[in-house]
Amino acid sequence: MEKLIIIKVGGKIVEEPQSLKQLLSDFSKLEGNKVLVHGGGRSASAIATQLGIESKMVNGRRITDENMLKVVTMVYGGLVNKQIVAGLQAIGVNALGLTGADLNYMRSEKRPVKDVDYGFVGDVKEVNAEILADLIGKGVVPVLAPLTHDNAGNLLNTNADTIAGEAAKALSRYFDVTLMYCFEKKGVLLDENDDESVIANLSPELFEKYVADGVINGGMIPKLENSFEALNAGVKQVVITRANLIHTEVGTKIKL
Amino acid sequence: MEKLIIIKVGGKIVEEPQSLKQLLSDFSKLEGNKVLVHGGGRSASAIATQLGIESKMVNGRRITDENMLKVVTMVYGGLVNKQIVAGLQAIGVNALGLTGADLNYMRSEKRPVKDVDYGFVGDVKEVNAEILADLIGKGVVPVLAPLTHDNAGNLLNTNADTIAGEAAKALSRYFDVTLMYCFEKKGVLLDENDDESVIANLSPELFEKYVADGVINGGMIPKLENSFEALNAGVKQVVITRANLIHTEVGTKIKL
Repeated sequence: MEKLIIIKVGGKIVEEPQSLKQLLSDFSKLEGNKVLVHGGGRSASAIATQLGIESKMVNGRRITDENMLKVVTMVYGGLVNKQIVAGLQAIGVNALGLTGADLNYMRSEKRPVKDVDYGFVGDVKEVNAEILADLIGKGVVPVLAPLTHDNAGNLLNTNADTIAGEAAKALSRYFDVTLMYCFEKKGVLLDENDDESVIANLSPELFEKYVADGVINGGMIPKLENSFEALNAGVKQVVITRANLIHTEVGTKIKL
Repeated sequence: MEKLIIIKVGGKIVEEPQSLKQLLSDFSKLEGNKVLVHGGGRSASAIATQLGIESKMVNGRRITDENMLKVVTMVYGGLVNKQIVAGLQAIGVNALGLTGADLNYMRSEKRPVKDVDYGFVGDVKEVNAEILADLIGKGVVPVLAPLTHDNAGNLLNTNADTIAGEAAKALSRYFDVTLMYCFEKKGVLLDENDDESVIANLSPELFEKYVADGVINGGMIPKLENSFEALNAGVKQVVITRANLIHTEVGTKIKL
């Protein structure tokens, strides 16, 4: 199988012109098949504020009422996604911006209301990877916005990490997939106060040991659990690194 | 060659939930290959107003400064386009929303400043129809937003009639194209005060006669001139009708 690299970057990187330009340049240098998944939360909050709509977050997740759904549809599907697509085309990458509704590539269901009503937030139920794989095979580079749809006419706000993970799992039927999550550090750190203490390789055994020892804690635990879930579902490798290091070997490589 | 129908609808139709729903239902009933091209000017003006950005129009065209470009990118490329795509998917149409930057399918150049500085408005220079034709051949229904790009990283605001006409011309190499412009009347009228006086068929000779007689005047003249240009460039037929009549035979059929 051919290789495919899926890069997920957060909002901050893609929302500032200088860091976006650097990211697109680094991304364009990755050889072979690739996919870019982006966030955009800061821009959504900024536009919402300008429109007099309050951003409400619970556990780091955005509450998406009807007005906020319009904002994220505009910002993620329009502003951020299309600026990335235009920026990539300018440097020779044949980008195609997609929400889950486009080509019906990712269907979700509105999250059931339990303790929290997240509103128009989607939990992914189905990924139609075949048409994506076909496009990728033709040299097209999908740029995935953090939006899905319920196939009943409603767009749904969906976490970009989840989009990246679900796309990676579904595409692993067609490619040897490396899924790369970019965040502000160079990788998973042995010592949170030492940015250079990157754990180079992480296995399930080592992960359990580090969690037991308290070396890995907090929000990194669900991130890594999701990574192992992706690996168990067929993804070849997950890498956690910083966006400006995607074309290097620096970062934490996670394998089974 | 297979047939392809390209429907262009204005903003008003797609911006009101009820008329949008009716349009998508009518559109979904058209058999065979199809493309939908949409406007969105009213929504753009409304969002701009909410953001404190003034909409300036000259000769019916929007002046697009940097802030307005962000608004139209959000509204045309995000809000309007993705709501249409999600709505079509819900009724079994495999829609794919596109700006000119996506797949680099339509490249334009920023309009030179003459009497008026229109700002970030694009004049179409190149249409890469092959990849569109390929997708259409696979049952995909492109939904085209009125945005192009200069292939240097900039999105450009582009009139939806122009997008429809340029797409029709380029796709006529692959399909027998019928281009259908929807507006508020049932067709080109013999008597502007009689909505039923639709001219059923219009040839270049008849057009010249009607213009000389003053029957056809005003904004309809450039619209029809563009139609004849499209026909001269290979489009098989242009139809001018009302959006709720696209699945009927009512309207003005224009042929060479």
